[in-house]
Amino acid sequence: MSYTLFYAPGAASMAVHWMLIELDVPFEAVLVDIDSNQQRNQDYLRLNPTGRVPTLVVDDTPYGESVALMMLLAERHPGSGLLPEPETAQRAEWLQLTLYIANTLMPAMRDWLYAAKDGDPKGAAAVKALAEKRISSVWDDFEARLLRGQTYLMGPTFGTVDMFAIMLMRWSRHMGCAATARPVLRSYINRICALPSYIEVNVREGLSGWPS
Amino acid sequence: MSYTLFYAPGAASMAVHWMLIELDVPFEAVLVDIDSNQQRNQDYLRLNPTGRVPTLVVDDTPYGESVALMMLLAERHPGSGLLPEPETAQRAEWLQLTLYIANTLMPAMRDWLYAAKDGDPKGAAAVKALAEKRISSVWDDFEARLLRGQTYLMGPTFGTVDMFAIMLMRWSRHMGCAATARPVLRSYINRICALPSYIEVNVREGLSGWPS
Repeated sequence: MSYTLFYAPGAASMAVHWMLIELDVPFEAVLVDIDSNQQRNQDYLRLNPTGRVPTLVVDDTPYGESVALMMLLAERHPGSGLLPEPETAQRAEWLQLTLYIANTLMPAMRDWLYAAKDGDPKGAAAVKALAEKRISSVWDDFEARLLRGQTYLMGPTFGTVDMFAIMLMRWSRHMGCAATARPVLRSYINRICALPSYIEVNVREGLSGWPS
Repeated sequence: MSYTLFYAPGAASMAVHWMLIELDVPFEAVLVDIDSNQQRNQDYLRLNPTGRVPTLVVDDTPYGESVALMMLLAERHPGSGLLPEPETAQRAEWLQLTLYIANTLMPAMRDWLYAAKDGDPKGAAAVKALAEKRISSVWDDFEARLLRGQTYLMGPTFGTVDMFAIMLMRWSRHMGCAATARPVLRSYINRICALPSYIEVNVREGLSGWPS
């Protein structure tokens, strides 16, 4: 078993990087320098034709899609405590929440961040406005969960959905709908960002300045 | 074990309905009449606060998110042959493709179909234009897979990603980027739509007229 993670600081690779640290499994991390457009190099495109991070090379075969990679790592390292295992009572809820974040929050983030690059720049304002509306509705959902007295999004236990959610909350930092502007979410963010593994992934990726 | 599927004909519930038929497990199907706005009734909102279909009630507990439900059913009924099981060589590829469809194609479809309802109607044209671009890029990806000689999206075996993809291809029927307009996809669609389980789910949901 070998893992090589191709990552860019703070990008969609961050949750996978964080999970690898939490799992405490050996892996190599390779920086993809987005600033110099390294993700469009032929070598990288051979690994990941989409030109996106993350790519996780598992035993010589490269795979993409951050959520798929987190699910794969969960299957390969059962008993981590980072998610409800198959056949447990909370499993369906975990799948539902994971897919909700993947197909609602994550695409809206992409819309906000890349509207002018992915589509016609003239239409970007309209795309971003709808994205902010959708992001806010996800924050509403998260707030409701936390207001029910939950410490983490799935209840009393920290796990993969929190890593995924915190990464995306960090992405909202320059948006009108920044997650940190909401006290309930801010408190959740502060709680998680004090975890040793969050501090560690920030150190390894050279990140600072969020959430404070 | 009991399943009750709340569905609307041709909606996101269709792939789950189809999978339940393929699995040949007992379930009850309950029609949610979207035309009379039944998905906004209090009784339904108690089951699914998003007011969307599908909802699958599993042993008295309701869950949503079509892709999560397909993953859940796969775990509860292993050995179906509809997807690579955990720890098999193709598992990572299946997770990657499933999440790619869930967070790229499915949200773009929602953008196209609901831009004016979810957001400001004035911005709908811009949102729909970006959606068509994204949908087309997924069709490009699917075509490339099929042109490599694959019978189905994952290779020689029909499965969950095909059910999910065909449902979404059907949604494209009134779009400028209709999947049936592409000969390679059309041939794939014709192949799958001849399967007894596809015919059966259409009969049960009262659907006709696509792809022909």
